[in-house]
Amino acid sequence: MLPRRPLAWPAWLLRGAPGAAGSWGRPVGPLARRGCCSAPGTPEVPLTRERYPVRRLPFSTVSKQDLAAFERIVPGGVVTDPEALQAPNVDWLRTLRGEDGRPPWAWLSRAPVLAQHCCLGGPRQMTLSACPTKWDLEPLPQEHRAGCSKVLLRPRTSEEVSHILRHCHERNLAVNPQGGNTGMVGGSVPVFDEIILSTARMNRVLSFHSVSGILVCQAGCVLEELSRYVEERDFIMPLDLGAKGSCHIGGNVATNAGGLRFLRYGSLHGTVLGLEVVLADGTVLDCLTSLRKDNTGYDLKQLFIGSEGTLGIITTVSILCPPKPRAVNVAFLVTCVPPACGPGSPRPARLPHPALRTPGCPGFAEVLQTFSTCKGMLGEILSAFEFMDAVCMQLVGRHLHLASPVQESPFYVLIETSGSNAGHDAEKLGHFLEHALGSGLVTDGTMATDQRKVKMLWALRERITEALSRDGYVYKYDLSLPVERLYDIVTDLRARLGPHAKHVVGYGHLGDGNLHLNVTAEAFSPSLLAALEPHVYEWTAGQQGSVSAEHGVGFRKRDVLGYSKPPGALQLMQQLKALLDPKGILNPYKTLPSQA
Amino acid sequence: MLPRRPLAWPAWLLRGAPGAAGSWGRPVGPLARRGCCSAPGTPEVPLTRERYPVRRLPFSTVSKQDLAAFERIVPGGVVTDPEALQAPNVDWLRTLRGEDGRPPWAWLSRAPVLAQHCCLGGPRQMTLSACPTKWDLEPLPQEHRAGCSKVLLRPRTSEEVSHILRHCHERNLAVNPQGGNTGMVGGSVPVFDEIILSTARMNRVLSFHSVSGILVCQAGCVLEELSRYVEERDFIMPLDLGAKGSCHIGGNVATNAGGLRFLRYGSLHGTVLGLEVVLADGTVLDCLTSLRKDNTGYDLKQLFIGSEGTLGIITTVSILCPPKPRAVNVAFLVTCVPPACGPGSPRPARLPHPALRTPGCPGFAEVLQTFSTCKGMLGEILSAFEFMDAVCMQLVGRHLHLASPVQESPFYVLIETSGSNAGHDAEKLGHFLEHALGSGLVTDGTMATDQRKVKMLWALRERITEALSRDGYVYKYDLSLPVERLYDIVTDLRARLGPHAKHVVGYGHLGDGNLHLNVTAEAFSPSLLAALEPHVYEWTAGQQGSVSAEHGVGFRKRDVLGYSKPPGALQLMQQLKALLDPKGILNPYKTLPSQA
Repeated sequence: MLPRRPLAWPAWLLRGAPGAAGSWGRPVGPLARRGCCSAPGTPEVPLTRERYPVRRLPFSTVSKQDLAAFERIVPGGVVTDPEALQAPNVDWLRTLRGEDGRPPWAWLSRAPVLAQHCCLGGPRQMTLSACPTKWDLEPLPQEHRAGCSKVLLRPRTSEEVSHILRHCHERNLAVNPQGGNTGMVGGSVPVFDEIILSTARMNRVLSFHSVSGILVCQAGCVLEELSRYVEERDFIMPLDLGAKGSCHIGGNVATNAGGLRFLRYGSLHGTVLGLEVVLADGTVLDCLTSLRKDNTGYDLKQLFIGSEGTLGIITTVSILCPPKPRAVNVAFLVTCVPPACGPGSPRPARLPHPALRTPGCPGFAEVLQTFSTCKGMLGEILSAFEFMDAVCMQLVGRHLHLASPVQESPFYVLIETSGSNAGHDAEKLGHFLEHALGSGLVTDGTMATDQRKVKMLWALRERITEALSRDGYVYKYDLSLPVERLYDIVTDLRARLGPHAKHVVGYGHLGDGNLHLNVTAEAFSPSLLAALEPHVYEWTAGQQGSVSAEHGVGFRKRDVLGYSKPPGALQLMQQLKALLDPKGILNPYKTLPSQA
Repeated sequence: MLPRRPLAWPAWLLRGAPGAAGSWGRPVGPLARRGCCSAPGTPEVPLTRERYPVRRLPFSTVSKQDLAAFERIVPGGVVTDPEALQAPNVDWLRTLRGEDGRPPWAWLSRAPVLAQHCCLGGPRQMTLSACPTKWDLEPLPQEHRAGCSKVLLRPRTSEEVSHILRHCHERNLAVNPQGGNTGMVGGSVPVFDEIILSTARMNRVLSFHSVSGILVCQAGCVLEELSRYVEERDFIMPLDLGAKGSCHIGGNVATNAGGLRFLRYGSLHGTVLGLEVVLADGTVLDCLTSLRKDNTGYDLKQLFIGSEGTLGIITTVSILCPPKPRAVNVAFLVTCVPPACGPGSPRPARLPHPALRTPGCPGFAEVLQTFSTCKGMLGEILSAFEFMDAVCMQLVGRHLHLASPVQESPFYVLIETSGSNAGHDAEKLGHFLEHALGSGLVTDGTMATDQRKVKMLWALRERITEALSRDGYVYKYDLSLPVERLYDIVTDLRARLGPHAKHVVGYGHLGDGNLHLNVTAEAFSPSLLAALEPHVYEWTAGQQGSVSAEHGVGFRKRDVLGYSKPPGALQLMQQLKALLDPKGILNPYKTLPSQA
């Protein structure tokens, strides 16, 4: 251990976060395993085709002969029981959106989940017996998506996927690939009667190299199971998500998932080393290298990362795992608000960097300045920089009874460090805090090093989604914006919507320039939607931002793609789709604009 | 500063590297600026078409009307002077291969380089007046590539590139995009009379964000100039190469360059955020986002990273720059050799990890074990782990008079750390060395922290290429292999070639699994080549390795692609080429196998 230097910052920085421990943990049960517990017992879900202006394309329908062929290809892996098909026909968002303050899992039955969810040791049955059931089933919010697929196939190998697709291609049958069904944009559920091809039984680790940290596994491995597997071997997965308990690595790659480790380990375009993909006609495309460097021609695997199963079905993934950090620290801080910086209170030693001045949002410039300082002083150990606004904190307090561990403020930031030497990391973080306090940039805060307190502080940020779902109907946007404009859209919407919105909040991965913008209302209202869209998209486009930072396009955002992509790019996407899937059988009605 | 703990490892670890300072520096002049000083005054270079079995495709030839059209598009940017066209017609490898111990720049004239080489402040003229000229021009080694292009175009903007390509597309004229002309596989020079489109005048930085570190610049910016630009702003470029003095960022991206920072900052597929690309028909494809996250549809820019100008010409690059490390340390170490580990000498405390046992190469298992230990103990600050074998050290000593700073050994490793806190980094490195010495894994070494000594130690590794070029004719291979088999091919070739080879050496980026395998001989010999190829490629394929780790395919390796890519992947590459460049005018005869 390093000899610790006495630090000059106040003792409250090391105080424990207040509140009952029970009310602070990360969500357990269905919220921690979103998707895996979708939808049994809710037959009244309106169908997507009845709710959206979408027409079925002229695919064939599944015949008895098709079912017989599938049974030959995946003996025992053909599901046609209507009850068993309810869950995979509905997207998981229904599990997170309540309209009356009831917890979002209220509608769930106590029945075992049909899908034998994957784990590394083989399939196992999971039940929802831990779910509360005192509320009745409730109506679903307006935009939930549900298809009416009558067949779900559960292959175990790439060869089986290949045979299935070859058959579907010949017969012109549409296919909806499905991993953990945890997507946010309706990309993982059928729109009509597409055959659902589940990767749930493709859940084997194929190899792990204990020196390089290169993991090769089937696409249906659950992220959390993989995390556990590699952590036992002193590595971590390069991505981490709230949905890790259910999401499949193949789905993560297919949607180019971002998440909590993006700031440190970057995009899957960098960490995925190889893929095996089955193309629409059943061809197995082998790009499954396990090499860090390979410049032999076009990097074909990149095409499939983020293409949401519309160009091919990912069956095997080779991914580079970083070494497991030995120390993790979290600081939860309150940044200075200029009006409060009077003669009696500490004043920022210097004005925020010109690039960071945001006159419309008092206090946000100081959040950005904190980020900039933090990047410089924490350097290679900075692993997360998240922010949330005052309304987020109020909602987390009101709906989840999580008390704020710090003084009230317009903005809060959560800083995480991960490193290989606990003493060094603590000292770096100490120096940063000393500087931030001394210069008046930070006015209050708390710090955690042990795992329990780290989780408690993370809960304040991670459970915002849950708090919002209890606040009413939620309009959700996931935007990439230049950091200095990140919060302007929140201020703009508050002024624009006035009393029509219950709350307008902003939070997210500030370190990645990724804002989660949410608007709550008592109930869904077409007029509120009209006030929001296309305004939010136009505003984002005006900043050269992205209308989908990490959630993807799926079914829901395909017609707003043009706000972030020029016509030439959309045209090339259509051409790639036509090249790789000329009959359009793979995940139709998704990713590409409906107006070809 | 951190209070430094007295470290237990011996004083020689901190001794300076011996040898006259003058003989230790990195190469200066043409070697430091490879490519920019190519080829004036060597009219006798044999043409590629005369040397290789390649036939000109039925493109049009440039007419007077074409030249007039080009002059209208890029006034003053049309070069047709035969002398001025010599340099861009020949690939840079000629500048690094001498056959008789003469320095490789011996053939260079003292004439100013024609190309007004780009710098951020505007074009400037560079001369080779610093080059030695006491040797006569010498014959070029066998496989140098030279085209006979009669036109070079020097646009300044994407619009000009667009107009050029639209014209060429209509007229069926082939185009060879050229950056710094520093490629290793003949991808940057014409094979026949393709029009050379140089990015040298597209050298402006368009924007730099001082908080996020996102740089947007034109494709012709020289890497070293960009490095200087961002370092002045406390950032670094995410890649660094020996050719940085000449190579263009557009060429780096087009070839998916690897280099010295790959271990730490990863592939350009992760760090490049956006590209503007001009397609074969002149369409400007705008994928120039400056956002860290953007999941709006297929990530089209990935197609062009590593496609060597065959799918489109990159005109603008948006790239994420990491913060500049405040401390850099280098250790140059000798790892233990099992036979020497007798009773009197330190013995490794435990056997190498089973995955690392390499019975055929005594001592290499300890190199791997050192890497594994080093990764664990240096964690986030490890920025390079390079290795070289004993023959490399002998050649560097013999031809460049660089004395080894350590005892003789079959293997040497160079470890670099880069971090934000000098004290912490020194302590981490100290702990690692203490452990490595205590366990007998490392038996000798030297360390450097100041910039001069750091450069001296790096010179031992970086100047191996130069030493090899003075040793005779060099057969070069750039392979990705599983780390535990990395050195086996060197041992295998020594046994296979016997006295027919002068030297067989292995060195490279061990941390990335990238071996530079080189064989020297007194002169080029077809029989030696036949003993090497396809054996090396077959051996690599047998290990699921890559026959081009970082150098790319270009002209030279297009027909060995099949050793690393299955037929299905090659077919899809051809389809992508046909989709994006149906007339095949962009960089023909490159990247894709000649047998379509």
